[in-house]
Amino acid sequence: MTKAISYAAVSAKEKLAPFQFERREVGAKDIQIEILFCGVCHSDLHTARNEWQNSVYPVIPGHEIVGRVTSVGADVKAFKVGDLAGVGCLVDSCGVCEDCKDGLEQYCDQEVFTYNSPDKHTGKMTYGGYSNQIVVDEHFVLHISEKLDLAAVAPLLCAGITTYSPLKHWKVGPGSKVGVVGLGGLGHMAVKLAHAMGAHVVLFTTSSNKVADAKRLGADEVVISKNPDEMKAHLKSFDFILNTVAAAHNLDVFTELLKRDGTMCLNGVPEHAHPSPNIGSLIFKRRQIAGSLIGGIKETQEMLDFCAKHNITSDIEVIAIQDVNEAYERMIKGDVKYRFVIDMATLKD
Amino acid sequence: MTKAISYAAVSAKEKLAPFQFERREVGAKDIQIEILFCGVCHSDLHTARNEWQNSVYPVIPGHEIVGRVTSVGADVKAFKVGDLAGVGCLVDSCGVCEDCKDGLEQYCDQEVFTYNSPDKHTGKMTYGGYSNQIVVDEHFVLHISEKLDLAAVAPLLCAGITTYSPLKHWKVGPGSKVGVVGLGGLGHMAVKLAHAMGAHVVLFTTSSNKVADAKRLGADEVVISKNPDEMKAHLKSFDFILNTVAAAHNLDVFTELLKRDGTMCLNGVPEHAHPSPNIGSLIFKRRQIAGSLIGGIKETQEMLDFCAKHNITSDIEVIAIQDVNEAYERMIKGDVKYRFVIDMATLKD
Repeated sequence: MTKAISYAAVSAKEKLAPFQFERREVGAKDIQIEILFCGVCHSDLHTARNEWQNSVYPVIPGHEIVGRVTSVGADVKAFKVGDLAGVGCLVDSCGVCEDCKDGLEQYCDQEVFTYNSPDKHTGKMTYGGYSNQIVVDEHFVLHISEKLDLAAVAPLLCAGITTYSPLKHWKVGPGSKVGVVGLGGLGHMAVKLAHAMGAHVVLFTTSSNKVADAKRLGADEVVISKNPDEMKAHLKSFDFILNTVAAAHNLDVFTELLKRDGTMCLNGVPEHAHPSPNIGSLIFKRRQIAGSLIGGIKETQEMLDFCAKHNITSDIEVIAIQDVNEAYERMIKGDVKYRFVIDMATLKD
Repeated sequence: MTKAISYAAVSAKEKLAPFQFERREVGAKDIQIEILFCGVCHSDLHTARNEWQNSVYPVIPGHEIVGRVTSVGADVKAFKVGDLAGVGCLVDSCGVCEDCKDGLEQYCDQEVFTYNSPDKHTGKMTYGGYSNQIVVDEHFVLHISEKLDLAAVAPLLCAGITTYSPLKHWKVGPGSKVGVVGLGGLGHMAVKLAHAMGAHVVLFTTSSNKVADAKRLGADEVVISKNPDEMKAHLKSFDFILNTVAAAHNLDVFTELLKRDGTMCLNGVPEHAHPSPNIGSLIFKRRQIAGSLIGGIKETQEMLDFCAKHNITSDIEVIAIQDVNEAYERMIKGDVKYRFVIDMATLKD
């Protein structure tokens, strides 16, 4: 075991605070990474505060991890000490089921999340990236390009792959008309990625003050979704809509914008259920409502390579780890463009 | 114009009763059919009673029509007098949109239904198959095999194609595990068709007294959907589920039975909304909820040819047209195995 330092929540009611713990020894297939930056995802806050009623304390959040390899196990072939490396939402899976064999570890029934999941190696829970180092099986470690801003790469490991995976799965590319609902951490990545894939991208937002920014990020059009006339102009015209808004809302106003055989994919689980969707709207154009969860490891590497090629990173605000509790409050208010990233150099003994 | 006789509803409150009207003259591309049998679909009842609030009276229901050609227009090539012929839910569409070009006329924005739709030819509404004859553009007339029981073929024109189309679209075949929810007019056709396509078919019903019949019709397994243990045994195992139940019900108990990337397709618009589906159940296995509407003309012919090859017809109860009102009452109670078909020889001046 090696000593590690972190910021952790020790209960649902307490703020994140300095916390010492231990990482496992580096096994034959393991990679140890000095964490340089870690993005702040809304899931971190949900788990720190037990909003999903499944938190086991202490919770050390963080699954948008980038850093440098400091140690590799005897059997590790693809990484060497000094390499840049990334870790996303997953650190383990069964490896033998159909999902794992298809490179879709995120759907494995035995997937292990980077934090707050039972850890097969230690018998405790997994601890995430708000810490100085992490030890991960090499299968779940990603190669990171040296040419991008490292802090701005971190959010690709969750916000990036969560939007890239459905865009690829539903074959977005040149000739596609793609809608993105919501311009937050996920939405702003979806706009950048869909634009780089060659699609015609329409961003839906309720805030007229996001129009200019959405266009800067790559949206061809921006529609204020509260305006029925603006919405009506897009009826039956979309091949695919990626809906990144988790808050309960009327899904029908978006499904009606899909062409025949179009799909709306949801990325977020609402705390309170959406109004029940209009089944007639699905039937009369053979439309589909789907969900998608992060992405597989192979696909995450593909996404990182795609981002390096197209010079895509997240728009970020770098913070010291001592400011993470304040960042959570600002995140709740939507006051971030578009992702907080913790500079782990600020984490001291 | 030629005189025609029928049973019609003249208001939402009145029973169907004898009604005289006129059909258009046979145009160059038209076919006139002497109607021999017409199936009774639940949509007939909804429209006769204005339950969808869109009925224009008089309503002459009926869109599961089979009969013999009595006259053809000068430009008709595929039919001659004396041929068997069928007409389903559609009698017209724009012919030039993407949906029409793809042979999916049911999704055309200008589709014309067989009854209670504005009729481009007459300027009135279309009148359906509870009558002695009909005149239809040849594009919307189907060839019917002489080798099947004609009365039992009639329901294929709606119940058959409405289930065949999604089974084909979602690629059901050997190796597929397919669920069918509900054993009514649609469900019993779905079981027969999916079985003939080579799938492993599981019928879901709330009635234990339907088990034997479902197996006779081709179900490999029958699950009582009210029994959580029986349901649990099928978790994450279905490639596709065709849900034929329009009454509001909990969709989640079925979506949870889908494999990763599985689809549940709904055939019916509920009068009262289903409970809002669990989006988490979609996200954690990339599942989809879809809808599907009848089928295109080309696909309807394909279905009829498939049924002739596999000797598939509907299970029916033949009635005199004078008994149609009583049949409606029995249909509401689910007291029919599995489709009423009107013998049009009982319709007299």
